Parts: sequence; C-alpha cells; structure tokens
Amino acid sequence: MNLLNGIEILDFTSRLPGPLAGYILSDLGANVTKIESRLKPDPFSESHLQFVSPAFNDWYQQLNQNKSLIQCEFDDPQLHERVNKADLIVIPKNKFFLDWIKYLKPKVVLQIAAGEKEFSSLHDLNALALTSTFNLHLQENQSPPYLPIAGLSFGSHIATTALACLLKFQQTKLPLTQTVTLKETVELIFEAFKSESFEHSPKQLHNGALPCYNIYQSKDHKFLCLAAVEEKYWKLFCEIFNLDLTMEDRFNKSEEIFEKIRKKFASITANEISNIIEDKQVCLTFVK
Amino acid sequence: MNLLNGIEILDFTSRLPGPLAGYILSDLGANVTKIESRLKPDPFSESHLQFVSPAFNDWYQQLNQNKSLIQCEFDDPQLHERVNKADLIVIPKNKFFLDWIKYLKPKVVLQIAAGEKEFSSLHDLNALALTSTFNLHLQENQSPPYLPIAGLSFGSHIATTALACLLKFQQTKLPLTQTVTLKETVELIFEAFKSESFEHSPKQLHNGALPCYNIYQSKDHKFLCLAAVEEKYWKLFCEIFNLDLTMEDRFNKSEEIFEKIRKKFASITANEISNIIEDKQVCLTFVK
Repeated sequence: MNLLNGIEILDFTSRLPGPLAGYILSDLGANVTKIESRLKPDPFSESHLQFVSPAFNDWYQQLNQNKSLIQCEFDDPQLHERVNKADLIVIPKNKFFLDWIKYLKPKVVLQIAAGEKEFSSLHDLNALALTSTFNLHLQENQSPPYLPIAGLSFGSHIATTALACLLKFQQTKLPLTQTVTLKETVELIFEAFKSESFEHSPKQLHNGALPCYNIYQSKDHKFLCLAAVEEKYWKLFCEIFNLDLTMEDRFNKSEEIFEKIRKKFASITANEISNIIEDKQVCLTFVK
Repeated sequence: MNLLNGIEILDFTSRLPGPLAGYILSDLGANVTKIESRLKPDPFSESHLQFVSPAFNDWYQQLNQNKSLIQCEFDDPQLHERVNKADLIVIPKNKFFLDWIKYLKPKVVLQIAAGEKEFSSLHDLNALALTSTFNLHLQENQSPPYLPIAGLSFGSHIATTALACLLKFQQTKLPLTQTVTLKETVELIFEAFKSESFEHSPKQLHNGALPCYNIYQSKDHKFLCLAAVEEKYWKLFCEIFNLDLTMEDRFNKSEEIFEKIRKKFASITANEISNIIEDKQVCLTFVK
C-alpha cells in the first residue's frame, strides 16, 4: 500500500511495540528510519538476549526489515536536522529523550511508555494481568499466552495514534507531543471484551465451547480449525464429511457430538481432507 | 484524546473488527456514527446469538458505547447526504454495498473483508490457522485462544488504515477507496513473530520457559504475573520475598527453581504479598 508515501518517520524505539508500529506504518507506505544509539543498540539485536529467547533476533530482523537503519551518536548535528525535518518522531518516554528533544524542533513527537508511575515497568505479562479477560486464559492454561499479545496490540495502537497525530498536525500546523501507553492500550482494547457472563460460562463460542467452532486433528496429526458457525457452512461440512448431525448439533455441548467429529477427522489424513474440501467454503482451515 | 476532533466517520460494519476500529477512532476523538439497517441489525445485538455466546451482547454494547447509533433504510436521502459529507465511511466489502455506493459520492471509503476468493469466509480461528506461530498455541492447548485475537488485531489495523486513508485524502483531495482484509492483517502482524527457533524450542521467555517470567498462585489462589526479567527487578524480588536464588537462576529452566517460587507464593496470601510489594517495582502484578 502506498497510502503514506512521502511521510518521513524516525523511530527511536527498541524491542517490540515501537518497532512493530514502524513496521505497520512502513507497510502502509511511510518511509521509516530506525535510529539506534551506537552505545546502546536494540536489546532484541544483542547476543546475550538470544540466550534468553532465540526468537528475539528473528523478531528484530522481521520488524525492522523495511526500515532504513542508522546507528549514530545522538549529538550528531545531521541527526538533529533530520529530526526537525521528519513528519513524526517516535521516542521512548524517558528523561534522556525528554532532555534531548528540548533543544530540537520536531513537528510531531509520539512518546511511548509502559505506563505512568507504578506502571512504568510493565512487561507484556503484567499488562495482560491488568485486564479482567485474562482470567479466561488462566482457566485453561497457567502459562503466558503463545505470543506477547499485549505488545502486538500496543504496537498497532502506537501506529494508529501516530497517524492521528499527523492528521492533527496537518490541521493545526502546530508542534505536537502525544503519549501513548501500554497500560491504557490494553485497558482500552482488551477490557472492551469483558463480559459478566464469563463468570458463569467462561467457555463460549469464541474460546471453544461448541463443536462448530473448535480445533481438531487429522489421522496424521495435522491441526484443523473448524469455524462452521453459520447454517450453510455447517450443513455443507456435515454433508461432505458424511456426518450424521443436525443443525442444532453445532451448538450442542455434549461430548458425544465433539467425539463424532473427532473420530471422523482421526480416520482420514490431511491429504484426504483437502480432497474432500476441494474449493468448497466450509470454514475449515489447516494450521500453517 | 482529542486528536481526531472534527472527523466524521460513518461505520456500516457489524460484529467485531469494524466496530472495534470505530471504538478506537472514537477514543481518539473522532465522531463515529454506527449505521444499522432496520432490516438487518448487527448480529451481536440479536437475541438468538446470545444463546451461542452471551458475551456477544456485552461486546456489542462496549464496542459501540461512544458512537451515535442510527437505524435506517439505506434508500433514505438523508443518509445519502451524510455519506457524501462524512470524512470516511467504513463498509463491509460485498456486492450490496458496492452497488449502493455507486450512486453516492463519498470522499473516502474503507472496505473491510475477511479475504479474497476462497478466504472470503474466514472466522477468527481460520485466520489464526493461516499464521505459523499458531502452532505455539497448539503445543499447549487445543482449544481456541481466550479472546478472538485475530479480530482484535484486525480491528486495530482497520483503524490504522482508516487514518492512513484520511491522510492520503488530505494530500490529494481525490476520492479514495481502500480495502483491508483479515487475512492480510494476520499475515502482516502475526507472521512478523515467526521464528525458526520455535521448531527446536517452542517454549521461550515470552511464553513461559523461565522462572522470572511466569504465572504463579498465592495461598488463596489469586494469580500473579511475574516478569522480573531485568537484574534489578529479579534482585529486589528475591530480596523482598526472601528467596535464596542467584541472578542466573532467573533463566534456569530446572523444575527446582520454579518449585521454590511456587512454594513461596503458595505459603502467603494475596494480601500478604501486596504488603510485601508495597510500592516497590518488581514487575509482579495480580490478575485483575
């Protein structure tokens, strides 16, 4: 997409959310430059962190793949000139950067932080703990979720807020500094999905209560995501897999229904399943 | 936030991702109106879907709380006038809406869809199946994740793309139609977190391999999220909880270390833990 062609963004952030925001904005066409201090590179690129999690370096490569990367000293006058020319700079909200930009004239500054005061050092898992919906996860599993999903959400929200700042600047032509925090983001987004009903029925359609929306395995242990919620998909699904189930059975929580579907899939290979589906739309997808 | 004050958005979408985008844009200050057909209301508001998942109605209320809601017929001339005046309209990408806007003159149209062709009927779970990282989830749990996280990601990305369209329009003053899909969004965002290393070590820091970043329980069964990854947090954490552990132990995967921490928390109540933490920053958060 080239929606943001011509927009110059300087990204001074590191690790996950800030770089993810730059990655999203770059995908939309912005010209994003990641600026790293020579003295203090992005921890995700450093070898000692690879010992903690070898994925971090892959994440670093992928999130920053379409950006220019500059390693420099922060007292470089050329850098100062670029800051003043850029449409937007994204910086961590900390004393160093606050002092540093005092002497510069950036148009739009987006500051990112975990949160204010006692929330200034939230990691992903701490942020999820601030959302009541996280109890749904804990009912199933007492390990952290498979991806740092608070950070994914925060990265997207930094990107959205960045563009909102640019729109405001286009309107007013006045320099603008805005802060966006992980804490406020997860409270905004994850808390929008709370429901009193979870107290009585923590398992619902979306998290696997029903046979029509669930995960199954083929004979050769390939995972299949079934989401045949609508009548037409369920009907066709039962037809092509020769399953003797009624329309109502798709919402029937009794183990017997699940077992019929499980048994069917366990009796055929992934290849055979693909041949049965052909190009029919039944909302059944193999996991990549 | 008032960054988007004065921006008029008409949202013709239903269910989760489109309304979430409107919710995010409204939080940033935009004036969002949700337009529902009198004949075909948002399924999340309908009583028959409450039987499938009682949370849907809460989600409907929460995602649309700060919007004006209009129920009308789509051949209403007043509606047509509003469409032409609005800064942006968000519509589902389908034949009905494509035909309908042909006779109108909207400035910016954002169309949302699950995907093109065989991907036109993806549900959340099908979309997650298209991302290789979903295998990490399946190693732990063969139920869908606790929230429709593909839809959460898509909702945020619709919001970001909407603002990118508005910036483009401000620059060119030319009418603009853009499509954003669930499939492309999850491929963009979730696939940025793939890593070859997951094949050999599917458990890493972020998903619970290490004692310093994990979930524990107090004596009275309250969940605690610990993320004391940095030396200073781990040091203080061990100090205040009187845990005889070394700096290296925070990255030590042996069961013995986990067990020491588990036993400590299992011996004290949530209240006692809160008193021990006081206002110290140790990246330890009770789940809400």
